[in-house]
Amino acid sequence: MSADSPHAADSTDSLTGDRTGVWLVGARGNVATMAIVGARAIAAGHTDTTGMVTEREPVSALELPPVEEFVFGGHDIDPTSLVEQAERQCERNGVPDEATLAGVRDDLTAVDERIEVGTAINCGAAVTDESQQLEESLSMRTVLDQIRDDYESFRTAHDLDRLIVVNVASTEPELPTADQYDTRDALEEALDTDDRDLPASVLYAYAAIDAGHPFVNFTPSTGNALGGVQELAADRGVPHVGRDAKTGETLVKSALAPMFAGRNLNVLSWEGHNILGNKDGLVLEDEQNAAGKLASKGDVLESILPEVGHNRVRIDYTPSLADWKTAWDYIHFEGFLNTEMTMQFTWEGSDSALAAPLVLDLVRLIAHADEYGDGGLQPHLASFFKAPLGVDEHDFSKQLHWLYDYAATHSDTEV
Amino acid sequence: MSADSPHAADSTDSLTGDRTGVWLVGARGNVATMAIVGARAIAAGHTDTTGMVTEREPVSALELPPVEEFVFGGHDIDPTSLVEQAERQCERNGVPDEATLAGVRDDLTAVDERIEVGTAINCGAAVTDESQQLEESLSMRTVLDQIRDDYESFRTAHDLDRLIVVNVASTEPELPTADQYDTRDALEEALDTDDRDLPASVLYAYAAIDAGHPFVNFTPSTGNALGGVQELAADRGVPHVGRDAKTGETLVKSALAPMFAGRNLNVLSWEGHNILGNKDGLVLEDEQNAAGKLASKGDVLESILPEVGHNRVRIDYTPSLADWKTAWDYIHFEGFLNTEMTMQFTWEGSDSALAAPLVLDLVRLIAHADEYGDGGLQPHLASFFKAPLGVDEHDFSKQLHWLYDYAATHSDTEV
Amino acid sequence: MSADSPHAADSTDSLTGDRTGVWLVGARGNVATMAIVGARAIAAGHTDTTGMVTEREPVSALELPPVEEFVFGGHDIDPTSLVEQAERQCERNGVPDEATLAGVRDDLTAVDERIEVGTAINCGAAVTDESQQLEESLSMRTVLDQIRDDYESFRTAHDLDRLIVVNVASTEPELPTADQYDTRDALEEALDTDDRDLPASVLYAYAAIDAGHPFVNFTPSTGNALGGVQELAADRGVPHVGRDAKTGETLVKSALAPMFAGRNLNVLSWEGHNILGNKDGLVLEDEQNAAGKLASKGDVLESILPEVGHNRVRIDYTPSLADWKTAWDYIHFEGFLNTEMTMQFTWEGSDSALAAPLVLDLVRLIAHADEYGDGGLQPHLASFFKAPLGVDEHDFSKQLHWLYDYAATHSDTEV
Amino acid sequence: MSADSPHAADSTDSLTGDRTGVWLVGARGNVATMAIVGARAIAAGHTDTTGMVTEREPVSALELPPVEEFVFGGHDIDPTSLVEQAERQCERNGVPDEATLAGVRDDLTAVDERIEVGTAINCGAAVTDESQQLEESLSMRTVLDQIRDDYESFRTAHDLDRLIVVNVASTEPELPTADQYDTRDALEEALDTDDRDLPASVLYAYAAIDAGHPFVNFTPSTGNALGGVQELAADRGVPHVGRDAKTGETLVKSALAPMFAGRNLNVLSWEGHNILGNKDGLVLEDEQNAAGKLASKGDVLESILPEVGHNRVRIDYTPSLADWKTAWDYIHFEGFLNTEMTMQFTWEGSDSALAAPLVLDLVRLIAHADEYGDGGLQPHLASFFKAPLGVDEHDFSKQLHWLYDYAATHSDTEV
Ligand SMILES: NC(=O)c1ccc[n+]([C@@H]2O[C@H](COP(=O)([O-])OP(=O)(O)OC[C@H]3O[C@@H](n4cnc5c(N)ncnc54)[C@H](O)[C@@H]3O)[C@@H](O)[C@H]2O)c1
Ligand SMILES: NC(=O)c1ccc[n+]([C@@H]2O[C@H](COP(=O)([O-])OP(=O)(O)OC[C@H]3O[C@@H](n4cnc5c(N)ncnc54)[C@H](O)[C@@H]3O)[C@@H](O)[C@H]2O)c1
Ligand SMILES: NC(=O)c1ccc[n+]([C@@H]2O[C@H](COP(=O)([O-])OP(=O)(O)OC[C@H]3O[C@@H](n4cnc5c(N)ncnc54)[C@H](O)[C@@H]3O)[C@@H](O)[C@H]2O)c1
Ligand SMILES: NC(=O)c1ccc[n+]([C@@H]2O[C@H](COP(=O)([O-])OP(=O)(O)OC[C@H]3O[C@@H](n4cnc5c(N)ncnc54)[C@H](O)[C@@H]3O)[C@@H](O)[C@H]2O)c1
Ligand code: NA
Ligand code: NA
Repeated sequence: MSADSPHAADSTDSLTGDRTGVWLVGARGNVATMAIVGARAIAAGHTDTTGMVTEREPVSALELPPVEEFVFGGHDIDPTSLVEQAERQCERNGVPDEATLAGVRDDLTAVDERIEVGTAINCGAAVTDESQQLEESLSMRTVLDQIRDDYESFRTAHDLDRLIVVNVASTEPELPTADQYDTRDALEEALDTDDRDLPASVLYAYAAIDAGHPFVNFTPSTGNALGGVQELAADRGVPHVGRDAKTGETLVKSALAPMFAGRNLNVLSWEGHNILGNKDGLVLEDEQNAAGKLASKGDVLESILPEVGHNRVRIDYTPSLADWKTAWDYIHFEGFLNTEMTMQFTWEGSDSALAAPLVLDLVRLIAHADEYGDGGLQPHLASFFKAPLGVDEHDFSKQLHWLYDYAATHSDTEV
Repeated sequence: MSADSPHAADSTDSLTGDRTGVWLVGARGNVATMAIVGARAIAAGHTDTTGMVTEREPVSALELPPVEEFVFGGHDIDPTSLVEQAERQCERNGVPDEATLAGVRDDLTAVDERIEVGTAINCGAAVTDESQQLEESLSMRTVLDQIRDDYESFRTAHDLDRLIVVNVASTEPELPTADQYDTRDALEEALDTDDRDLPASVLYAYAAIDAGHPFVNFTPSTGNALGGVQELAADRGVPHVGRDAKTGETLVKSALAPMFAGRNLNVLSWEGHNILGNKDGLVLEDEQNAAGKLASKGDVLESILPEVGHNRVRIDYTPSLADWKTAWDYIHFEGFLNTEMTMQFTWEGSDSALAAPLVLDLVRLIAHADEYGDGGLQPHLASFFKAPLGVDEHDFSKQLHWLYDYAATHSDTEV
Repeated sequence: MSADSPHAADSTDSLTGDRTGVWLVGARGNVATMAIVGARAIAAGHTDTTGMVTEREPVSALELPPVEEFVFGGHDIDPTSLVEQAERQCERNGVPDEATLAGVRDDLTAVDERIEVGTAINCGAAVTDESQQLEESLSMRTVLDQIRDDYESFRTAHDLDRLIVVNVASTEPELPTADQYDTRDALEEALDTDDRDLPASVLYAYAAIDAGHPFVNFTPSTGNALGGVQELAADRGVPHVGRDAKTGETLVKSALAPMFAGRNLNVLSWEGHNILGNKDGLVLEDEQNAAGKLASKGDVLESILPEVGHNRVRIDYTPSLADWKTAWDYIHFEGFLNTEMTMQFTWEGSDSALAAPLVLDLVRLIAHADEYGDGGLQPHLASFFKAPLGVDEHDFSKQLHWLYDYAATHSDTEV
Repeated sequence: MSADSPHAADSTDSLTGDRTGVWLVGARGNVATMAIVGARAIAAGHTDTTGMVTEREPVSALELPPVEEFVFGGHDIDPTSLVEQAERQCERNGVPDEATLAGVRDDLTAVDERIEVGTAINCGAAVTDESQQLEESLSMRTVLDQIRDDYESFRTAHDLDRLIVVNVASTEPELPTADQYDTRDALEEALDTDDRDLPASVLYAYAAIDAGHPFVNFTPSTGNALGGVQELAADRGVPHVGRDAKTGETLVKSALAPMFAGRNLNVLSWEGHNILGNKDGLVLEDEQNAAGKLASKGDVLESILPEVGHNRVRIDYTPSLADWKTAWDYIHFEGFLNTEMTMQFTWEGSDSALAAPLVLDLVRLIAHADEYGDGGLQPHLASFFKAPLGVDEHDFSKQLHWLYDYAATHSDTEV
């Protein structure tokens, strides 16, 4: 791990030989399940790597830990087994298909045994309903210790060279008092005095980074976005990245909006309506849990088109769609001679199938940063996120070229 | 003009004081009419510059000739006056609106008197039907001389410092034997022997470049794309650019396709269906005239997504839509775990209102190149075209950044 | 008018000679303005009757009062003149166009002088904000008398043979205690005891029907839907009809949903998202005012597809769209062998241009019913409404055939 | 069968006990395969009857032969077995799913043995490419005898009470000289003189009807639409019906177009673009084979909206879509005050899953007609077809009510 073992320049091929552990917070959710199914199906030769950014030029030129070798574990608060989760997805969404599921069923059973009960403190009723979680009454420090122990036991049990922690748990309500924990001192003081406001995502992030494990926040939850956690990561030199992966409507927005800007077209209104039917959708029905998501989705547009007249995003729960997130966007814009015109698009994607390969990409890329001692924020990974930490640029193409530049620089060194 | 008067480095503000002539080949067409109406409406303060790339940061930092000062003239083969053309557009499309039209009516009448009869040789029956044009029987050299004289008379009559020739005439049929004119020698030999295969666009381009006038090919026609013409421009150091301006569906494609590539998503089919009802649409109903257009539209996708499974573009004539080009694109793609997903969009734009500001932008930018002695091809203007001469890159965002880099470099020098 | 002067069977052509008054409650709103503009533009020969059901076979076979002869008056609470309203619509929506507006400007000025200040009791803050209305403190009976006097003065001043009252005012909040006024006795008792809960629409309806004026409720407001008002109309033999005209998304639903039913396809979800930017949209932003609208829109589907799995309608305010109501509907359905399929549509209509001709149609048709002594409910007019009073059938085609049957029966008699 | 055994009025429940044979011409095609899979899956309790019109009120009130008891056989020219066809559909389209397919695999094997080699005379190269068919050189009468024998052997082998012949073979090119066979005499004379122009569909239809077997033409091919065949059916009193089942875009059109007509809206353009990737799509790539399809699709609109300004239908082959037929329709219409508006829809349906239940419905309903001695044309079945024989009405709702009236009349008698 980065904190104790910064690698020397000559260890270039060690990454491909390393044992990489992937700890998924929310390990039995849709995204996690699909990431595990996909990694194991690739390992078994049942599917290819379509959808993985790290498997395409120029990023594929980097030396990265192979997905086939990932060792999975994680936390969850839902006792339903990984196999049952995958079966439900197969049946409801058609992804994974039956043959693929059959080929990885034993692997899922094995991973399921490595999933521990997590904390769901301040995750909101929509999340904790019917869950099985660490006692709410435990002190913050006690919970932190428990999480850290879970990470450490996993690491030693599987003899891992490196452990990456990825938050793919349900979206928490926003933390309104986030700026009270702007420094590491303030945050640690809060932990010491058993402040009851901190949400689970912060505890998972703190425990990981404090122990030197690189951390990925795939969700809109607070986690490593908190000032105090960021300072800790900088101090410890641990790479971390987030937040809220960009997989569907927002991805399209971040590719399309620069076109309107680039042609000096005046966007009068950009209306976005998302409907989906999975558990993520159910949780986002709760206004509190939705707040963060809507914020990160809305900001992308405001950043690229600062003069946009009207910008609304809706997310609605439509059960029959299951994991098929469907978005309709209507763009009303004005051009030359005050001519009003429109563009509209409909996006129909399997949300988890879009997200899962990015989880694997991020694990590989943050492992690479860790290996090369690049601690702290990772701006070259901004293209993966709706609200990239430490980055103001939301133009997808520009973000992507930062990644390509990183790949070019590092793959040159490696050869 | 560039050939005789390369400007010195200290003349940086001369451009804004220069008298710039804009010679539109196809001066009574939709695009030309809208460009003239727009420029005059801006001059009169009736409208703003929305839609003009050169009026937005960072390109607006360049010193460019003001649109308000442009002097318009041109060739056409349709005797219907510019005022009538504008009235028809107002009535059929609602663009320009009645108030704007009223404000520029006198200007249009004045410009109309500066429109000369052009040649329509090898433009196809769809174009020449009911037209009034130079005698088909005249020799190529005689026609060339006539065109050159038209340019020159206009230049002297209006005491112009610089004359930019822009081809916005109807799309010609493709020239199947284009590679027979790959060199300047071969082309001039053909002119000398009165080769009857050369199309009008080549004559307009040759005459312009030979006399040192920068040339913009806004259409899919051959014009300055011919090898022999390119060689002439290089020899003469005259800037020229083209071809086929990127204004609607193809523009969207060039912004969206890189997103699919960047996420390693496998596009199985990209189906594009355009319907429009203006004269451009009528001409493109003719299979021969459509060939070039379909080629440049199709190539964009093949270039960005070399492994696209199926790529079809249709352009159909739907009279009631007039100038409102409507495109429906359906994208069928495969992601992780072989999951098939779809995206579709509908674009509804006033074709001429999208095109006209780009005509003005290109005049300004090629005048800038001319002023700075940058002859030959203009790769930094690639973002304006479906088939940019001398450029293989079709990713809109990348192309745009070349323009931004050019603007940054030159505006620094200027300050 | 019907109450005092039931016409004899031989008066069949009297209708075309009659002077018909049209009293619009909400006379300066979008729908009213467009109806008045349209009627006068037809009278002046500036436009045709496209969009009017009564001008197409078989309904056109009926003898109906000519639109050209309508005398307009009305109530409103907005002091902005009719001419200004029409100008704003011309400018923001392009409907009416400038030429049409110029041709009716004087007529609008004349009508504007016949618009009286109305009551806005219990119309909600979204409506009464910035309005000019009858004193809130006046007793219900006093307000009723005032309204009745306004109707009567207009009738005598213009020597009208018949006066039709049409409610096209803003949507009121729902009346939660509607069933307390289920009988005429209960309603009149409430008026006598100055019950402060009754909303304006009930007062307008009561005053009209009590005085024998046929009444049309174009809105979702309570009005003549109240049990006590219905009983009064039956007692008085006055024709009345409503509620909530069916002009856009719901119209399409009522045409499309029967297709899914007829083919035994199982609709899993029908998601409807409406965006609009006119004042109606602004008022419907208020949850209370929206409640009734959403109910009548939702019911159509439940009635045609009783087993629909999920049925949601959203109405959102998007200012730039002005009167252009845009709806996106996404239909997820299951067919043979449990195959899941989808249909989606986008509807882009000028809301008032769709509504206005129906106002004119309804005036003509209810005048016809009045002439023939057909008092009470008018089931043959169900096709015009989202929540047709006294009718359970929502299939547009079936409703339309009731109108055609009525036309066939009555036009036979007339010949 | 009808010709020899008209049933008496008291035999009302005989139909449910009868052994009904279903002879599918094109028995290994997508539609046929899906119909067989569906019927057997219903019999095995693997799926329900969603999508079958005869299983929903009021048609379900009729006494009809149960789908579970159907005995399937047929002709084809493709030697690939029914099991392989079903497997390919499962894999390419996901319909049927793997579990359903597993449950009917043995049934498919059994049916496959009852499929005979058919004739493909005049079916066009797109169809006969790689096929295995009756010798082209055989005389028409010889082929007819062979077909008749195939029907008869099947009937006796399975001890059937009634045999229904359904044409679900590939679309043939249009028969340009169709009116030369307008009478039975002319047709029989052509057969006797071995006229080489008659296409396969006519032979299948003639053989069926001549032997008293009810005939359903699910395709746009000529078959029983030929005057001579219609006369034969009338003489023999054999029920027959067609042509071209209405399952997707055209179905939607026939539900939506009446709405525009009913509101007196003026449709300026109706543009329809279909893309699909199954074998039907491949055959329709051939202009000749497509002609009939396009005609029947186009006629629906012309009939409902006689004044439609522009009406185009395109069908394009997009391989990756397999059986998922996707249609985009764009409707440009004019309303009150010359306001131009638009509606567009996208339909995404599994073509065979939409068609298959209708095959089963039609077999049941024509068996019913046969049982009750209703020979000749069947106007009450018009709702099933794009070009219903003998019917001019294309409004889906009206057509459907004819079926409902038939059901009401007959189910009353039956009770
Ligand atoms: N395309 C995408 O799917 C996508 C894109 C961007 C972001 N995200 C985010 O990723 C997250 C996961 O999405 P999903 O679709 O897998 O959701 P999900 O509801 O299927 O899975 C979330 C899992 O987290 C578990 N969980 C909840 N709170 C927990 C806690 N405190 N500790 C441990 N486990 C906990 C839940 O039990 C569940 O198993 C969400 O926050 C979502 O917003 C998803
Ligand atoms: N958005 C756009 O409108 C757009 C985008 C890219 C390219 N283009 C291209 O720009 C060109 C103009 O488009 P438009 O919509 O204005 O078409 P248009 O048909 O309205 O105008 C073309 C004009 O050119 C004239 N013309 C034809 N042949 C000529 C000749 N040989 N010499 C002189 N004049 C001639 C015609 O008489 C007509 O007035 C077309 O080639 C079109 O493909 C347009
Ligand atoms: N297509 C359509 O436009 C359509 C369709 C169905 C129903 N409707 C209904 O028709 C009504 C009018 O729609 P609009 O677009 O014209 O709205 P609008 O807001 O433009 O007009 C409403 C008018 O009513 C006036 N008003 C409000 N309360 C009043 C009162 N108590 N007494 C007198 N005047 C009053 C307002 O001042 C305004 O001038 C709404 O209820 C709307 O829901 C419209
Ligand atoms: N929704 C729908 O699928 C739909 C709707 C309306 C009409 N149709 C029509 O139904 C027909 C079948 O459609 P499909 O999708 O099953 O097509 P398909 O190509 O999958 O099947 C057609 C079958 O007919 C066989 N065939 C061709 N010519 C034959 C001949 N002369 N004799 C015997 N067999 C022959 C072929 O070998 C093939 O197995 C087509 O005409 C199509 O236009 C289909
Ligand atoms: Na693949
Ligand atoms: Na009209």
